[in-house]
Amino acid sequence: MRRLKWAKAYLEENQLYKDPSIHKGRWKKSLGVDEIHVEIGSGKGDYFIGMSKIYPHIGWIGVEKNESVAALALRKAHSENVQKNTSFIYQDAKNLEEWFMDGEIHTLHLNFSDPWPKNRTSKRRLSHVSFLEKYYRLLDKQGEIQMKTDNRSLFEYSLVSFSNHKFLLKEVYLDFRADIHDEDVISEYEKKFMEKGNPIYRAVFIKDTGKE
Amino acid sequence: MRRLKWAKAYLEENQLYKDPSIHKGRWKKSLGVDEIHVEIGSGKGDYFIGMSKIYPHIGWIGVEKNESVAALALRKAHSENVQKNTSFIYQDAKNLEEWFMDGEIHTLHLNFSDPWPKNRTSKRRLSHVSFLEKYYRLLDKQGEIQMKTDNRSLFEYSLVSFSNHKFLLKEVYLDFRADIHDEDVISEYEKKFMEKGNPIYRAVFIKDTGKE
Repeated sequence: MRRLKWAKAYLEENQLYKDPSIHKGRWKKSLGVDEIHVEIGSGKGDYFIGMSKIYPHIGWIGVEKNESVAALALRKAHSENVQKNTSFIYQDAKNLEEWFMDGEIHTLHLNFSDPWPKNRTSKRRLSHVSFLEKYYRLLDKQGEIQMKTDNRSLFEYSLVSFSNHKFLLKEVYLDFRADIHDEDVISEYEKKFMEKGNPIYRAVFIKDTGKE
Repeated sequence: MRRLKWAKAYLEENQLYKDPSIHKGRWKKSLGVDEIHVEIGSGKGDYFIGMSKIYPHIGWIGVEKNESVAALALRKAHSENVQKNTSFIYQDAKNLEEWFMDGEIHTLHLNFSDPWPKNRTSKRRLSHVSFLEKYYRLLDKQGEIQMKTDNRSLFEYSLVSFSNHKFLLKEVYLDFRADIHDEDVISEYEKKFMEKGNPIYRAVFIKDTGKE
């Protein structure tokens, strides 16, 4: 996507989302919910904003580091008049621990993450072991990670990476959209892939507490 | 496949393969090899017979309970003049422990196993927990299970089942034949699925010894 000129100023105006660490350890209270879901790499925000309306009793937080799409997500959140159960972090997810306490998150969502296909950039994949160690700590005992992607290589890599770093596979779908799932939001991004006829892969990982 | 009339008599004539338990604990010696590979549900035998030629230093044992295909596999083994490193068991794999000692097998191969699609028959799937417990014991410490299938539901079920029963995912391919793998045998059965354009799924599972 090309850079949006208005994005920087727009993000700066919205001080509301500037310092997420002030909520650390009390996100549930801040959002008035019992359960925190975080979408890492939330792009234009279709997913977490849509989900926040379907599930108002859950707290939905989008994390996005790209300036232009972050601005689009924030504008979307405003124009759609999202409720108190929604928040947004315009930062790099590698700093997750700065904003969340251990065990504070119930579900992490990874939707159509950047595949970083080259081997030398594998560290940037959101399913690289360095991220998995953070996820493990930040998730509560019953916590889970829900991942969707159309990228076969990223999905293969992720299945192996999670399996070898203290996560168990709870569910897997190798053609998720072959069946209907009412409870879900299909983003604009996802629709494009579906129209190409690509299968959408989905996995749900849980903590392997047998290894603590 | 329709029943072959000559199969029963043919299998009975071949006393050689009648009582596999006589080799229990000394398969390596019997086959003159350092490593035992077992294909469960070996069908017409294309895979393990082909592999026994490519890898003569490995012992290859096919297990098949269906009379007609077992007879075809045995006939193929004879006509192709397989060497001493090959054997065959015409029995039901649920009795694996009767023929193998704990830790005696290095690799189990599950190729295009019957998917048993109905829930009430899930116990018959070769990746059902009742089989996984046997595999775990029979495999040596560095042992692995190599699975290939074109059946999406069976593969999804298997990934979850192995993950939750003391196995780790070592490798996974969601379109195995998108790349060339010189070292492998493609069976007649597999060729048919490839011609239909179906992706071939493959996984390699290893024992999660951190849980012993």
